[in-house]
Amino acid sequence: MKPRRGNFFEDFRLGQLMVHATPRTLGEGDSSLYMALTGARHVLPSSRPVAHSLGYRDRPIDDLLAFHVAFGKTVPDISLNAIANLGYADVRFLLPVYAGDTLSASSEVIGLKQNTSGKSGVVWVRSTINNQNQQTVLTWVRWVMVHKQDATAPAPATHVPPLSEFVAPQALCIPPGFDASGFATIATSDGHWWDDYEPGERIDHPSGMTVEEADHMLATRLYQNNARVHFDALAMKDSQFGRRLVYGGHVMSVCRALSHDGLENALIIAAINGGNHVAPTFAGDTLYALSEVLDKWELPGRRDIGALRLRLVGVKNLPVAEVVTVRNNSGGYHAHVVLDLDYTVLIPRKSS
Amino acid sequence: MKPRRGNFFEDFRLGQLMVHATPRTLGEGDSSLYMALTGARHVLPSSRPVAHSLGYRDRPIDDLLAFHVAFGKTVPDISLNAIANLGYADVRFLLPVYAGDTLSASSEVIGLKQNTSGKSGVVWVRSTINNQNQQTVLTWVRWVMVHKQDATAPAPATHVPPLSEFVAPQALCIPPGFDASGFATIATSDGHWWDDYEPGERIDHPSGMTVEEADHMLATRLYQNNARVHFDALAMKDSQFGRRLVYGGHVMSVCRALSHDGLENALIIAAINGGNHVAPTFAGDTLYALSEVLDKWELPGRRDIGALRLRLVGVKNLPVAEVVTVRNNSGGYHAHVVLDLDYTVLIPRKSS
Amino acid sequence: MKPRRGNFFEDFRLGQLMVHATPRTLGEGDSSLYMALTGARHVLPSSRPVAHSLGYRDRPIDDLLAFHVAFGKTVPDISLNAIANLGYADVRFLLPVYAGDTLSASSEVIGLKQNTSGKSGVVWVRSTINNQNQQTVLTWVRWVMVHKQDATAPAPATHVPPLSEFVAPQALCIPPGFDASGFATIATSDGHWWDDYEPGERIDHPSGMTVEEADHMLATRLYQNNARVHFDALAMKDSQFGRRLVYGGHVMSVCRALSHDGLENALIIAAINGGNHVAPTFAGDTLYALSEVLDKWELPGRRDIGALRLRLVGVKNLPVAEVVTVRNNSGGYHAHVVLDLDYTVLIPRKSS
Repeated sequence: MKPRRGNFFEDFRLGQLMVHATPRTLGEGDSSLYMALTGARHVLPSSRPVAHSLGYRDRPIDDLLAFHVAFGKTVPDISLNAIANLGYADVRFLLPVYAGDTLSASSEVIGLKQNTSGKSGVVWVRSTINNQNQQTVLTWVRWVMVHKQDATAPAPATHVPPLSEFVAPQALCIPPGFDASGFATIATSDGHWWDDYEPGERIDHPSGMTVEEADHMLATRLYQNNARVHFDALAMKDSQFGRRLVYGGHVMSVCRALSHDGLENALIIAAINGGNHVAPTFAGDTLYALSEVLDKWELPGRRDIGALRLRLVGVKNLPVAEVVTVRNNSGGYHAHVVLDLDYTVLIPRKSS
Repeated sequence: MKPRRGNFFEDFRLGQLMVHATPRTLGEGDSSLYMALTGARHVLPSSRPVAHSLGYRDRPIDDLLAFHVAFGKTVPDISLNAIANLGYADVRFLLPVYAGDTLSASSEVIGLKQNTSGKSGVVWVRSTINNQNQQTVLTWVRWVMVHKQDATAPAPATHVPPLSEFVAPQALCIPPGFDASGFATIATSDGHWWDDYEPGERIDHPSGMTVEEADHMLATRLYQNNARVHFDALAMKDSQFGRRLVYGGHVMSVCRALSHDGLENALIIAAINGGNHVAPTFAGDTLYALSEVLDKWELPGRRDIGALRLRLVGVKNLPVAEVVTVRNNSGGYHAHVVLDLDYTVLIPRKSS
Repeated sequence: MKPRRGNFFEDFRLGQLMVHATPRTLGEGDSSLYMALTGARHVLPSSRPVAHSLGYRDRPIDDLLAFHVAFGKTVPDISLNAIANLGYADVRFLLPVYAGDTLSASSEVIGLKQNTSGKSGVVWVRSTINNQNQQTVLTWVRWVMVHKQDATAPAPATHVPPLSEFVAPQALCIPPGFDASGFATIATSDGHWWDDYEPGERIDHPSGMTVEEADHMLATRLYQNNARVHFDALAMKDSQFGRRLVYGGHVMSVCRALSHDGLENALIIAAINGGNHVAPTFAGDTLYALSEVLDKWELPGRRDIGALRLRLVGVKNLPVAEVVTVRNNSGGYHAHVVLDLDYTVLIPRKSS
């Protein structure tokens, strides 16, 4: 049948391996667009000489740009019929991606659990992203709730994979050849150091960014993510929200960009530990961001760089100063929170 | 006089050759933008390794991106004073265009016919697009209705050039070195084959795309097409439609991108046989697409690839399933149809 | 304190040197985006073969794209707390910028004058933009009115730097190796020559361009200019104008692009002598442009190229033909004027 209709819950088998279609070559144009779409200003994807000075062979593609493109590849097979993207974990950035690299994605089904309704189920996959040299550059686990097409299809054996709360410091990858010991001397060292952040610290990022329909659709198309909820205003009129939804990855990227002011030197995203897309974002919403330092770690054998585990909270239509507590005592989110992301960055140390 | 006012009907002479201004170098950034603007996901412009595996020296520029840029070059001389773009025919894609190539356009007047009103006329041109090595990469015929500036100017001899209904299979160009015999083994072979399509078959593509003012203006500016109807909301207030028109080429590209689901392996546009821009598209409209297989041809001496002649129908603000017949018995179009494009693609054969 | 709050008036010292953060590598993607965002069609950034034929090693980055990116770098240190961008002068384009070049910006404080209110003051800076080879490619003076954070901070000695009304012809830089003596023979020579323009001449450019929120925000983010007035619709609701302001540089670029029709061969911006952003532009406004020839100069030792000093007037929501006088007798601007830019271009001479 043409076109294919994507996979339903009963189509997934534990251990099944899916090679996702259409490898995507990334280029300089993608980097420029990513800056224009999100306001990204972190130094590594911005500046070739700074990247060289830190041991890269070129300025790398922004970590989240690579993530979104790779994620988009998995949508047709994994989540085209998804009721909800429930979560992701153990997202690890293993190697830099450069302009000219081609990303190919595959996924293995690592968990299945039919819902008690019998009409849908949860699928866990481990996705693996390779470059054109068959090096794995990125990997993650995510889980989605998917419709059954045939409600009478038998339930699979329940298997829920064990998942860590966060990526352990010893599992974080530092790019080969990376050396931040000279970072103090370069023109961009005008922010703060690993040493300057303490667990429990909160940073209210000052800027806001209003999202337009054209923005988020351009971004989502750039990632070749064809989930219909982002593009089809007519179909979405009859949906719960009555309009197009902004791709959660775009919210993530805008908030990461907003977090530049106060986290200028958070050079590398090494891991995403988990994330909640707490509420939808729509065109016309203005996004703000606050960060909390969850933990800080020295890295084995490194004096030049350390890790910060951060919480990035996206807030809409309210300056973050007014968000006194992100979650209330009963665990509910503040009404304006849209994103609660737990991720780990690498940031130069002062003593270097 | 500055600025120049473009050509009026009486300025054209049969056999006249016009070299159009401003050759345009295409780059990786144009490819990225094209994906972001249209949602294009076909594999050749997306993936360098896949392009290599098929015999290309790099991933090519999307066929329609090259077409739109080339078309834009001809606007100032041919259609700045056009009342209507009446049609095009014999559009043949002769050689791949790569990032770094520069397109230069020229046109020859091959037909003239003054309207009975004496106030305007139809001009036919053959446009030829060369790359920086003076190789012709693209050619077409189009005809436009153009105002006379001076209604008393004498009518030229009427000459209407003969035009074929479609580009014959033997006139289709396969890129030099192209070989799809290994296509089955690559990660993108996850669609259908030439063998899987039959004349008369209809494919309803599932996705929709809502067009924003920013989208279509970005696209049209990228092509350096300066036709005013797309950009000047103030001037367009007094026009027939009261607002900006979406460039017909943008509609074509969005529909081609929507047609990916069901025509994943329609790798190459070899020809455009003709097209009707049936009704205008405006920002806010949601586009859908359906395809009909008009014909299928083996290609001389090729077992790896065949040709499909397709009809791509663009529909606005109505899911295509509700468009039971594109044209009614008296030849009129369904009220929601905006585009009726007749084109020919090359698509790998299963037996390869 | 994180994030940093930018500099206030009392933080500036005469002679102080600031190295601005985050060098920015420009690429082909930036050029493509710049065309798509502004409608730029001048030939040098469009066409590699034409650039080669004039002595460039590649097509250069558009002069104003380089300017805006460089300008954006200075915002966090110079104008984050600015009440007003009062003016700029002596903007000189010294060397071409190419895809792959990295721009670094620094500024020296060359003037200070506290306002009589004691609550703010004017700061003059000379900014210098170097490429990755430490060659200065661009320099300018600008002055801004900046708040004091501490009104009791003592006033600095007043120093107002002397500024010329315009960049003298002998100070204009022609790119090394530039030679336009063969310009007549190339496909783009389809405009007017230096010889064809006379001081006092006015050119009404025919096209208009409506600005969308997505456009101007994409452009301003591309330049990594993070001035909040352009992005945060919620915060701007309480501002004087009640909404986001379009970055003045975007208006400049759109007007320069509109001026292509009538100034096709104004190949190079050699200097910006000064400029008034007369009134704000908002999304939804339609921009038009007219040019006046202020002066024309031969250049020492050159027969192939001359200079035109031009006035580029941006008008919104009114065709320029209706703007009979840009300024009335008492010096006030026509109510629809948004930009009054005094700049100098290099343009081939016919006699070459």
